[in-house]
Amino acid sequence: MSRYFKRASKKAGLSPGTAVFVGEKKTDRVEITLFNFTSDDVKELKPDSFDACFPIKDAPSITWINVDGVHDSQGIQKLGDRLGFHPMLIEDIVHTDQRPKLEDFGDHLFLVMKMLYFDREKKRVESEQVSVILGKQYVISFQEKPGDVFDPLRERLRKGKGRIRRMGADYLFYTLIDSVVDHYFVILEELGERIEQLEGELVANPSQSTLHSIHAMKTDLVFLRKGVWPLREVISGLQRNESKLIKNQTAVFLRDVYDHIIHAIDSIDSYRDLLSGMMDLYMSSISNRMNEVMKTLTVIATLFIPLTFIVGVYGMNFRFMPELDWPLAYPILWMFMIAISFVMLFYFRKQKWV
Amino acid sequence: MSRYFKRASKKAGLSPGTAVFVGEKKTDRVEITLFNFTSDDVKELKPDSFDACFPIKDAPSITWINVDGVHDSQGIQKLGDRLGFHPMLIEDIVHTDQRPKLEDFGDHLFLVMKMLYFDREKKRVESEQVSVILGKQYVISFQEKPGDVFDPLRERLRKGKGRIRRMGADYLFYTLIDSVVDHYFVILEELGERIEQLEGELVANPSQSTLHSIHAMKTDLVFLRKGVWPLREVISGLQRNESKLIKNQTAVFLRDVYDHIIHAIDSIDSYRDLLSGMMDLYMSSISNRMNEVMKTLTVIATLFIPLTFIVGVYGMNFRFMPELDWPLAYPILWMFMIAISFVMLFYFRKQKWV
Amino acid sequence: MSRYFKRASKKAGLSPGTAVFVGEKKTDRVEITLFNFTSDDVKELKPDSFDACFPIKDAPSITWINVDGVHDSQGIQKLGDRLGFHPMLIEDIVHTDQRPKLEDFGDHLFLVMKMLYFDREKKRVESEQVSVILGKQYVISFQEKPGDVFDPLRERLRKGKGRIRRMGADYLFYTLIDSVVDHYFVILEELGERIEQLEGELVANPSQSTLHSIHAMKTDLVFLRKGVWPLREVISGLQRNESKLIKNQTAVFLRDVYDHIIHAIDSIDSYRDLLSGMMDLYMSSISNRMNEVMKTLTVIATLFIPLTFIVGVYGMNFRFMPELDWPLAYPILWMFMIAISFVMLFYFRKQKWV
Amino acid sequence: MSRYFKRASKKAGLSPGTAVFVGEKKTDRVEITLFNFTSDDVKELKPDSFDACFPIKDAPSITWINVDGVHDSQGIQKLGDRLGFHPMLIEDIVHTDQRPKLEDFGDHLFLVMKMLYFDREKKRVESEQVSVILGKQYVISFQEKPGDVFDPLRERLRKGKGRIRRMGADYLFYTLIDSVVDHYFVILEELGERIEQLEGELVANPSQSTLHSIHAMKTDLVFLRKGVWPLREVISGLQRNESKLIKNQTAVFLRDVYDHIIHAIDSIDSYRDLLSGMMDLYMSSISNRMNEVMKTLTVIATLFIPLTFIVGVYGMNFRFMPELDWPLAYPILWMFMIAISFVMLFYFRKQKWV
Amino acid sequence: MSRYFKRASKKAGLSPGTAVFVGEKKTDRVEITLFNFTSDDVKELKPDSFDACFPIKDAPSITWINVDGVHDSQGIQKLGDRLGFHPMLIEDIVHTDQRPKLEDFGDHLFLVMKMLYFDREKKRVESEQVSVILGKQYVISFQEKPGDVFDPLRERLRKGKGRIRRMGADYLFYTLIDSVVDHYFVILEELGERIEQLEGELVANPSQSTLHSIHAMKTDLVFLRKGVWPLREVISGLQRNESKLIKNQTAVFLRDVYDHIIHAIDSIDSYRDLLSGMMDLYMSSISNRMNEVMKTLTVIATLFIPLTFIVGVYGMNFRFMPELDWPLAYPILWMFMIAISFVMLFYFRKQKWV
Repeated sequence: MSRYFKRASKKAGLSPGTAVFVGEKKTDRVEITLFNFTSDDVKELKPDSFDACFPIKDAPSITWINVDGVHDSQGIQKLGDRLGFHPMLIEDIVHTDQRPKLEDFGDHLFLVMKMLYFDREKKRVESEQVSVILGKQYVISFQEKPGDVFDPLRERLRKGKGRIRRMGADYLFYTLIDSVVDHYFVILEELGERIEQLEGELVANPSQSTLHSIHAMKTDLVFLRKGVWPLREVISGLQRNESKLIKNQTAVFLRDVYDHIIHAIDSIDSYRDLLSGMMDLYMSSISNRMNEVMKTLTVIATLFIPLTFIVGVYGMNFRFMPELDWPLAYPILWMFMIAISFVMLFYFRKQKWV
Repeated sequence: MSRYFKRASKKAGLSPGTAVFVGEKKTDRVEITLFNFTSDDVKELKPDSFDACFPIKDAPSITWINVDGVHDSQGIQKLGDRLGFHPMLIEDIVHTDQRPKLEDFGDHLFLVMKMLYFDREKKRVESEQVSVILGKQYVISFQEKPGDVFDPLRERLRKGKGRIRRMGADYLFYTLIDSVVDHYFVILEELGERIEQLEGELVANPSQSTLHSIHAMKTDLVFLRKGVWPLREVISGLQRNESKLIKNQTAVFLRDVYDHIIHAIDSIDSYRDLLSGMMDLYMSSISNRMNEVMKTLTVIATLFIPLTFIVGVYGMNFRFMPELDWPLAYPILWMFMIAISFVMLFYFRKQKWV
Repeated sequence: MSRYFKRASKKAGLSPGTAVFVGEKKTDRVEITLFNFTSDDVKELKPDSFDACFPIKDAPSITWINVDGVHDSQGIQKLGDRLGFHPMLIEDIVHTDQRPKLEDFGDHLFLVMKMLYFDREKKRVESEQVSVILGKQYVISFQEKPGDVFDPLRERLRKGKGRIRRMGADYLFYTLIDSVVDHYFVILEELGERIEQLEGELVANPSQSTLHSIHAMKTDLVFLRKGVWPLREVISGLQRNESKLIKNQTAVFLRDVYDHIIHAIDSIDSYRDLLSGMMDLYMSSISNRMNEVMKTLTVIATLFIPLTFIVGVYGMNFRFMPELDWPLAYPILWMFMIAISFVMLFYFRKQKWV
Repeated sequence: MSRYFKRASKKAGLSPGTAVFVGEKKTDRVEITLFNFTSDDVKELKPDSFDACFPIKDAPSITWINVDGVHDSQGIQKLGDRLGFHPMLIEDIVHTDQRPKLEDFGDHLFLVMKMLYFDREKKRVESEQVSVILGKQYVISFQEKPGDVFDPLRERLRKGKGRIRRMGADYLFYTLIDSVVDHYFVILEELGERIEQLEGELVANPSQSTLHSIHAMKTDLVFLRKGVWPLREVISGLQRNESKLIKNQTAVFLRDVYDHIIHAIDSIDSYRDLLSGMMDLYMSSISNRMNEVMKTLTVIATLFIPLTFIVGVYGMNFRFMPELDWPLAYPILWMFMIAISFVMLFYFRKQKWV
Repeated sequence: MSRYFKRASKKAGLSPGTAVFVGEKKTDRVEITLFNFTSDDVKELKPDSFDACFPIKDAPSITWINVDGVHDSQGIQKLGDRLGFHPMLIEDIVHTDQRPKLEDFGDHLFLVMKMLYFDREKKRVESEQVSVILGKQYVISFQEKPGDVFDPLRERLRKGKGRIRRMGADYLFYTLIDSVVDHYFVILEELGERIEQLEGELVANPSQSTLHSIHAMKTDLVFLRKGVWPLREVISGLQRNESKLIKNQTAVFLRDVYDHIIHAIDSIDSYRDLLSGMMDLYMSSISNRMNEVMKTLTVIATLFIPLTFIVGVYGMNFRFMPELDWPLAYPILWMFMIAISFVMLFYFRKQKWV
């Protein structure tokens, strides 16, 4: 399937709000993990179906449900109906080619973002949609496939480290965003190293494969930018949002994650500039090298073509060629040819060709 | 007729508001379909003329009139006069080279958008103007030629599936927009696949036809962008619009269609970047290949030109050339020439030409 | 005189508000036409001087004075003084290198725009300044030379067709703008056709003249953009303007003309993109062709240079060359040379050069 | 000294507000001219030092002090102290590498702009800083070296021509700005003419020097833009400024100078576009020409290389070469070679190489 | 370690607000300097640990603590806890890959900026993070390694020169920013000089190393821009900030530093334009030179290839070649060959190749 666009045509013509799974099935079964915690206590469940996930609204404890795999559209729809989610929200979770966005439905916030990772097999950046719903006392997150980005977070929840269990659902919500955004930097770091390595290659020994690497990285950056850029206005919207779901003490953390996103975008733009510069450098190097080759050819050809003509002249079989009988003709000719060569070399030196 | 601009000169000098059909007549006869429905009931008519379309204002049921073909400017003008439409509105329906836009005439809204489709015969993206008028209890839509984009919508109306019959005219209005926007993604998907295919071609075997394909896709994107981009502010305007014609419950759907348009624009921009990168790659590949060719020529010519000169020397007919009579001259010359060749090959190897 | 800039130096150092005619005198004599009309009646005069143009303020009927030729700066100054125009306004009419702009002087509005036309002789887009003053009951327009853009308008005035005589001076003012803007589309249409034609040329047979045509069109677009772009904010300003001179019923017409300008700018930008793409295509085609030429040269040279060396060897006159006396040497050499050629051709085939 | 940046390092580490002259000393001595005028009377002085310039505050007459040369930082500092100027203001006058800007200090306004002129000797655009202070009844202007831009203004003051003596200090302030801005157009006009001339050169006979001229003009435009662009927001700020120092009747003049600046920026941008297009055209022309050269070489080489091989064959000295003894071998060979040439020419013709 | 990105992966997965030192350890030991001053008196200490730095809040005198080296994260954390700093603030100081930013924590402001310097060894621009905290009576600054940028400031403090001891902590805060920003100009000046030098090289003798220098400078500018650009909105935010910590009299100084940053950004952008132009010039020069080389080769080859063919003809050993026996054949052939050469030279002259 195309990396650039998911199969939207499956859906064209359907009623809006119809939850049809769109995309590659990235995992075989849907896996649900449920955390229920207060500052003192934490319970961890792995329910088999969505039915085991209730009631979570208005509970005094905070519940985090994480769903890996979104192709069970019926199950998700049922979950959504129970918690009073708008059909469009469910559609957006399941139809995994959304642009990052934030929607405020009054008693819950809905956020879509792109988890990006470097696929070492395909040697390119791939993306996965992460949808998060923040309610009063719960957070529900949906991933396309099981991943380890949230693992350190789970560990912190289990151990009660940091402020994660003391603070509310909104802080958990922030932490999920932060985990995804932090992972962008892992990719950026990797790309930064590869850029530096390519720069070395460019100076030392530019080849066709260097060119393809530059192009592949440019394509990766287009992809990366498409995933990261919209998140900027999403978080900005979250900061300006007057929803009661976000408490004041979480604001400073949101500001921090916003700074990180801006930083990531800055870096992507810098990388683009660097890669454009490298493309120019590559092109110039190729031109330079061609020039070098041409100059060698020209010097050799220009030196020998006239000489070859001269020896050709005295290879002619005319009966009446006075020079042929002169005793010193042969050494004189040699001297003449050597003189011509020196004149030419002098000219080439002046032209800076040799 | 030019794809880039419709014949506007027909109209220059006429009084503003004169409804003159501008464009290619894309269908022979004007076809009218009329749906009249409540949540319980639906009537479907195919009237022969616009006269059969009244009264539709203030009726308790909702009426949707779809007109395929807009070259019957007089009929449309009559319809407009009866329903109290401004002459400029009628002109805009008939003059099919409008930019997507929204106009609020108080008791009705007028929206122009571009339906885009991939013409498999001409192998390029073509556009068709779709004008929609939303009144209190009616929606009137105009297409340039019969198309199948609204067919799933008709089916849903007939079967009463989804919420389409329960909600008002504004929801029908939204659904029309949504159908058109969803179709953009079909094109984007197709373009995305072709880009990926071209990328493979570029790496494996770039040819003149690859170049022309890249150029054609760039042109298509310019065209696409011109059709999609203005729709963004149109829908944004619709969201901010305080018209009573748009009810609150439709707002969330408009937000969704707005997100889709932004997504489409993002994709168009990404594609542009990708195609620019591919153009650069193509150019570099051509340069690289030329370099390869040049190097071969230089190696061959540089190896043999001096040797040819040498054998030319001993082809001269001077009477006094001592070497000619030496018994070992011939094998010695061969060894000398072989030595020269090795020296040169060594030099080429050092220059990384062979 | 330069197309890119008019001789401003004539004016440098003069007191601001000094009306000095700047530009090429595009017509010999100043021609004044005066229309005076109510919805029932129309009078048309061609006065010899500006003196015959009074009184026009506060008259019940509406007066339109059109002046072709602005080099009579004294006459225009006198007219301005009588009607109480600011000296800067007069300067702007006469100094014809203004940027399109709108100025509100309370009891009159002053608008400058650029009339663009394709000069078939010089084969390029030329511009002419059109200044229009809207007073309560009058409109005064200034053109640099007699033109036919306003002729259909005059015809409509004479015949009383359309709503032009029923509506006020502001509608006439709008109609003048509309006439100028409509003419932009005539140029755009022509350019669009030429672009399509050039595209065909590019694919079939790109030549030096194609290149110059693309460049000339790019230059035309720069010129066009400079004339059209500022008009956008001018009309936008006119719409937001709270002057009593513009009545509500004219607003919908201004919105329409605004849409047209946006459309024109969109098209100019699309054309620029298309032309940039064509330039790239041209460059690539040239590179491709050069590659083709190089490959032919390389194949021929590489095939024959070694062979020529070989025959040179046996053209040497050494006394002791055993091969020369072998009876089958000649046919064997031929077979050897043919074998070499085949090996080389096989290599070229593998390199995709033949 | 670098044109691109003045020696700022002299100043690094000093206390802010320290008035250190930075730049090239463009004139040897500081020259002060003082005009004191009412609408009836004008006095002109050339005082030797700044001490003679008091009192000027609150006088009923208007005083204009113009200072040519700013390297006398102590004198300027003393003047500033007497008139109560902020130390930062004095620093900005003396440190002549400021960006154009406007600062409102309550009872006086401080404006910095760049006077641009074409240095015919260095053949490039140079800039000079002009700082102007507007007080209630006085204007003080500082130039880096004596120039003639303000001369026509002085003449008008002396002769009492125009409205310059009737209106207040703010009008004088405007006139100084207007003089500087008007001079931008002189440069733009000159550049416009050179662009047109270069365009002719490009089509007729592009050479290395054309390339360098295009590059030099691009550099000039970068420089020009850097000087003009910030002035836009400066004047815009002046218009929005609610300082009592600017009277209402001067507003229309400021609007005019603002329009001029926008016009200048527009022109600079158009020039940039034109020059970019010319660069592309130049590159394409070079490529085209190279193509032409290559084709000639290929045609000649391809025609003669096989023929030379053939005649080489019959120059071999094998004892047994039957053709050598045929009586018609020589004329038959000629015919054969001519035939080969025609075949090749036909092929070249088909390839459009000749 | 990569210059483009610091190792963020160390931190991924940790709880937000965890102070982990990220980056290269640029100095071995942490050095603390403490200034405590009133307008009359100044005390200077070099405490060994952070414990010696209290109490500084609410003291009547002003305290400036400068810390060189931020890898002692525990010490910094303790300092932060005592002064009531938010954990995120501490994290940002220690994690030295922050984007320049300003954060208002009510009773203290936190500012991050990038100190840029030209590393003469690596021949490129490097950056160091400078974090500054402004409290009511104290300023705390953190640098990554000991530097001399603040030395002149220390000197002024010691000597009581300028207004630095008379004004409050906010003025000191400004002075620190000003010192960093002033240093940007030192780099810009250096880059400006190198650009001018490269321009000379480009015209006189462009080489591969010129190309690499241009590329290196472009990379430096990307880097520079990334460090300077965000500071613009930081200072702009500081100006708009309504914090009581910034007094009115400091505002004019902040405006000045803001102007400097804008100026720096302008210069960076101009440099980018200049370097792009130089890259184009370089590419064109290479093309031009290649053209020159090709023309020489073509002229020589085209002159001699036909002549070599001709002499080859008369080197053939056919028994029946009538010309060989003509007495004047040899001189006639010479004349013929000379004539051919002249015709060709005439043709080359017409083509402007010689």
